[in-house]
Amino acid sequence: MAKINEDLQRERDKCTFKIAELTTLIDGGRDRTDARREREKVLLSRTKDLDGVPEEYLSHKEKYERAVKNSVILFGLVRQMQEEGKTSVTDYRDVITALLASAQTRDGSPLGVHYIMFMPAILNQGTEEQQAQWMPRAWNSSIIGTYAQISRREKMISCDVHASIASPDIIFGEKGDAIIDDDDDDHTELGHGTFVRGLETTATYDPSTKEFVLNSPTLTSYKWWPGGLGHTVNYCIVVAQLYTKGQCHGIHSFILQVRDEETHEPLPGIKVGDIGAKLGLNSVNNGFVGLDNVRIPRNQMLMKHAQVLEDGTYVKSKNSKLIYGAMVFVRVVIVFDMVNYLSKASTIAVRYSAVRRQCHTKEGEPETQILDYITQQHKVFISIATAHALRVTANKLWDTFNTVTEELGGGNLNRLPELHALACCLKAVSTADTANCVERCRLACGGHGYMHSSNLPLTYGLVTAACTYEGENTVLLLQTARFLVKTWQNVDTAKLTPTVEYLKNTRSKGFIEKWQNSTECIIKGFQIVAVGKISSSVDHMQQRISNGMALENAWNMTSVQLVSAAEAHCRVIILSIFYEVMNKAMATVSPELRRVLQKLVELYCVYWALEKVGDLLQYAPIAQSDIREMKSWYEDILVELRPNVVGLVDAFDIRDGILHSTLGAYDGRVYERLMEEALKSPLNAEPVNQSFHKYLKPFMQGKL
Amino acid sequence: MAKINEDLQRERDKCTFKIAELTTLIDGGRDRTDARREREKVLLSRTKDLDGVPEEYLSHKEKYERAVKNSVILFGLVRQMQEEGKTSVTDYRDVITALLASAQTRDGSPLGVHYIMFMPAILNQGTEEQQAQWMPRAWNSSIIGTYAQISRREKMISCDVHASIASPDIIFGEKGDAIIDDDDDDHTELGHGTFVRGLETTATYDPSTKEFVLNSPTLTSYKWWPGGLGHTVNYCIVVAQLYTKGQCHGIHSFILQVRDEETHEPLPGIKVGDIGAKLGLNSVNNGFVGLDNVRIPRNQMLMKHAQVLEDGTYVKSKNSKLIYGAMVFVRVVIVFDMVNYLSKASTIAVRYSAVRRQCHTKEGEPETQILDYITQQHKVFISIATAHALRVTANKLWDTFNTVTEELGGGNLNRLPELHALACCLKAVSTADTANCVERCRLACGGHGYMHSSNLPLTYGLVTAACTYEGENTVLLLQTARFLVKTWQNVDTAKLTPTVEYLKNTRSKGFIEKWQNSTECIIKGFQIVAVGKISSSVDHMQQRISNGMALENAWNMTSVQLVSAAEAHCRVIILSIFYEVMNKAMATVSPELRRVLQKLVELYCVYWALEKVGDLLQYAPIAQSDIREMKSWYEDILVELRPNVVGLVDAFDIRDGILHSTLGAYDGRVYERLMEEALKSPLNAEPVNQSFHKYLKPFMQGKL
Repeated sequence: MAKINEDLQRERDKCTFKIAELTTLIDGGRDRTDARREREKVLLSRTKDLDGVPEEYLSHKEKYERAVKNSVILFGLVRQMQEEGKTSVTDYRDVITALLASAQTRDGSPLGVHYIMFMPAILNQGTEEQQAQWMPRAWNSSIIGTYAQISRREKMISCDVHASIASPDIIFGEKGDAIIDDDDDDHTELGHGTFVRGLETTATYDPSTKEFVLNSPTLTSYKWWPGGLGHTVNYCIVVAQLYTKGQCHGIHSFILQVRDEETHEPLPGIKVGDIGAKLGLNSVNNGFVGLDNVRIPRNQMLMKHAQVLEDGTYVKSKNSKLIYGAMVFVRVVIVFDMVNYLSKASTIAVRYSAVRRQCHTKEGEPETQILDYITQQHKVFISIATAHALRVTANKLWDTFNTVTEELGGGNLNRLPELHALACCLKAVSTADTANCVERCRLACGGHGYMHSSNLPLTYGLVTAACTYEGENTVLLLQTARFLVKTWQNVDTAKLTPTVEYLKNTRSKGFIEKWQNSTECIIKGFQIVAVGKISSSVDHMQQRISNGMALENAWNMTSVQLVSAAEAHCRVIILSIFYEVMNKAMATVSPELRRVLQKLVELYCVYWALEKVGDLLQYAPIAQSDIREMKSWYEDILVELRPNVVGLVDAFDIRDGILHSTLGAYDGRVYERLMEEALKSPLNAEPVNQSFHKYLKPFMQGKL
Repeated sequence: MAKINEDLQRERDKCTFKIAELTTLIDGGRDRTDARREREKVLLSRTKDLDGVPEEYLSHKEKYERAVKNSVILFGLVRQMQEEGKTSVTDYRDVITALLASAQTRDGSPLGVHYIMFMPAILNQGTEEQQAQWMPRAWNSSIIGTYAQISRREKMISCDVHASIASPDIIFGEKGDAIIDDDDDDHTELGHGTFVRGLETTATYDPSTKEFVLNSPTLTSYKWWPGGLGHTVNYCIVVAQLYTKGQCHGIHSFILQVRDEETHEPLPGIKVGDIGAKLGLNSVNNGFVGLDNVRIPRNQMLMKHAQVLEDGTYVKSKNSKLIYGAMVFVRVVIVFDMVNYLSKASTIAVRYSAVRRQCHTKEGEPETQILDYITQQHKVFISIATAHALRVTANKLWDTFNTVTEELGGGNLNRLPELHALACCLKAVSTADTANCVERCRLACGGHGYMHSSNLPLTYGLVTAACTYEGENTVLLLQTARFLVKTWQNVDTAKLTPTVEYLKNTRSKGFIEKWQNSTECIIKGFQIVAVGKISSSVDHMQQRISNGMALENAWNMTSVQLVSAAEAHCRVIILSIFYEVMNKAMATVSPELRRVLQKLVELYCVYWALEKVGDLLQYAPIAQSDIREMKSWYEDILVELRPNVVGLVDAFDIRDGILHSTLGAYDGRVYERLMEEALKSPLNAEPVNQSFHKYLKPFMQGKL
């Protein structure tokens, strides 16, 4: 192993807590740490020679070809490990997750959707016969599929997916039962994202041949975005408006073969290809498909829920609520993704800031580590705290999800609206906060953070994508707002579910007797802010209505405030959970670690209190002098955390092979790595590029 | 011309003002609009066939080769136009600007630095003999050069460039004369950006041969970043620590030949290459160079200011103040750049939002244009207002720059510190605001904004780079803070220069008698906020000092607050200038345009008042009821601007060939263009990619 940079080594030497203890806490137990390390070791050891020319130097097409090569090797490895029955790698989901996080597929994999969505969709929506027909071939990768729409949409025909924007009558009206509407935004057709009802692809049943005829009647109805669809998959689950016996029954899912299994040529009537280069995810092979009278047998409609009989009779689904589970599940996974990216970005920025020196603080001394500048600490430390806060929140959401799922099994739907509202705002706030944090980290690394070899630009590309996919953030926050407004309107009479109980509590007399600069008081302050924002949004809306404005317009006019109210609610949730869970954890750890965790919680609370100080001033009993003191408090926390930040990011325990960053590697050989990566540029393979002879020289000689 | 999208046409039909009138106002006169259009027409007509495969599909190396080809054609065209004496294109700077903004070099040009920095540096720093020797060859491109450091640094030896962070004694101490220090951050050496004194490259004079011997003693001293240095230029101006007669005289500039003029091979002792792939600017060919005992003749040190005589005697420069002009000039140019990018991004987002429809507002009606959602208006309209606000501010800064330059000629240095502080904060705030606005626009376009063909990802890559280059934003804001703190400490006694006069005025009794929701009152409110932040930062710092903290530590501990104070000052400047200049303009335009301009000014003021409501609550006499009303006011402004926003972005008058966006083209054929661009992906040229046969099929057959 190469020598560790001296500054980094000094940081590690002075760290006051045991790094391994925190790693165990993060993983949720020593055995889980061990299992994760074992998985990573196996994967990294068998894939370390896949790299070659760094991805950022490749063309779009070369990136794709590299991605296919690496993906089949990696997924082949998974298959092999399963066959070998390696105990440490038997957890399918953990392996896939570890695999997709590895450096070789860090920009995504064209096979990812096959494992993450295609197979689960068949399991969730297919009948037992259909599962028996398709799953064995999918499982051993004899066929590779993708999904042109998220599964849970199947039964959304009767509810307005964009109701949070377009149909506020659901809030004020009687359609209480429809409070959970789908709201996703996957841009599954070129012209339609969020609004699923507007999908134009059709599947018309032809009883004479017992087939469905699939069509893309317009350019805007082309499917657009499914991962792997471009040139990789030969099957695809397509969502289309079902017509039978002259009637439309809304959207349903169909298994469609898009390419020949032997030749891989697109089948007749199918126009399929790559959608082009993107900000990130260029290894995913997102594709489009257009259909011209493509016929598929009747049994390729996924019929676990609704069915079309041989004669074309439509049989409705009996059950439409349970499928919401999948949606919540996906969003919890996204929050965990964000935690991973935050851990990476903060590891890179902190280690680089320890190595990078700039300017003398005092004449004659060595230049100062930039980690010593408070402005740098202000940029970077919040990412560490955010990673912890989102991790414990995602864990909690996961537990809640499991509880509610159990209750659902018993027919209890009470907490479904709450869970949905929670998943919506947590997905939105966690992705937006992560994107901001990652970009702060990147900018904190100055010009070198702009280099692809830092891995920060790609990381930003991936996290910012999450602000749009699986529910565009603004749309999601309006979903949460809808739940909050409805809850608020019944706050005096209804029994409130746990995450909104505070809506009632804050109104008790002396909820905050006198402001104190403590984490507890800040959390109470945020509760007051959320209540204030919800109630004033409702007032604002009702005032516009009483001035004669139509309900849907009043909702639209208030929507900027509603988004803000939903965000405030989400801050309450994250702050409270972080505080509670960490306090419990602190009771179980060493005193050294306890002090550091305490500071992380304080940092997170005070950072957000100062960020939202305008809200606190409007709604909570906080004075200017409190704010002045709070700023000093914040500065002091940064200084107290300073000696331990390298230890804090080391505890994320991200191997160099996964981190993949010149600036963030464990040994801190920043400049050596920057130069090594630059020398891998194919441009540097020749001293003189051909363009000199072809263009530059004639130009310099005045001949061009 | 293709048919215009019906929605866009309807927007244009209902626009209430004359678009041409606003375009004229933006350009600064009808003749300037005509000249700009003529330039663009010539350039676009002669370059329209350069495109081929869209750049986003190319490899890093192919991008470079394309960039060289396009650049020599474009700069050859400029040369040709100059020779032809075309009156409309004789303004060198305008032509270069138009050229670099064109779609063909939108990601930068490897020849750009030759024109923008190499030649100006020789003019500014070379003696008359040196100019005569080098300029004719540079002018007709017989040699191509780059600059490994910004010129103005030449004389920075005696002042601490990072003093704003590291040496606060300059504020409190006696070094008043040194108030302007350089503070740039161009990462000109691998291990050194901001701190110029730390540069390690050496130039040692050898009187026996009358040569300088240039060396890169360490890896961290390699020059890193100069545009075109990788494989394009054969000359380079290098900045190095000058040693003669055993003494170091600090950094000076030297003309260095890096490649053979005939063969383009790197010269002996010179290690030169490409620094690798970046978030953006991948056509610029940023390079590195390391020097191993490279000898150059004595007359290749640029000696307009300081000299080394034949015997090695060092002769000091007489004049060190005038060179600050160049720095301010560069920063004004950056603000104008930001205006261009904002105009582009808002054009794309507004036109797309008019074309894109999503969800019904009412049952049975067509889906709603997303431009009708207030949340969308909130995301996008501020970019239009910001483009105008920054444009008039940049114009004003430009005028101030010229005034101060004249005064400098007459020996009056009074306004130099003010100008420097102004340029620092305007560069920082304009680039940060623009990056935020562009990203808001991109996210407002959903998944399609993530496509490279929208041109939004590249635009973001270019504007976020500006947050780091030419002075890292935090460092710059601390420079401004230093000026503000110093000014504040003398506020009662000194005669204040114009842009800080308000520091005194706000303290007059009844400065705001009673808060009113008006643009005038908001501007006054921001003045109070800036004063409040400056004074409380100073108090905070002094309190830490009286508690026994060393001055430099107290400055560091307060630096987050100081950055915030400098930003607040900058907001005062932009808001005041925007308000004043637009009010004057409104007196000269038609009533229809006046109403729209009025709303733009209101939008900008109210948007920022709500963004900074916490500051207003802390420092200005504003009540909660004012804020409630202000939110309604904001919503109403959005609605009032709504019918004219397509007209507002049309008035930016950006040709499709320059905008280069599938989502933003004038005709609004969004979906057709998305598909057309996708079909240009080389992946789509073959129905089956080779990787199927090589990897995918064996994998699917279980053979891999």
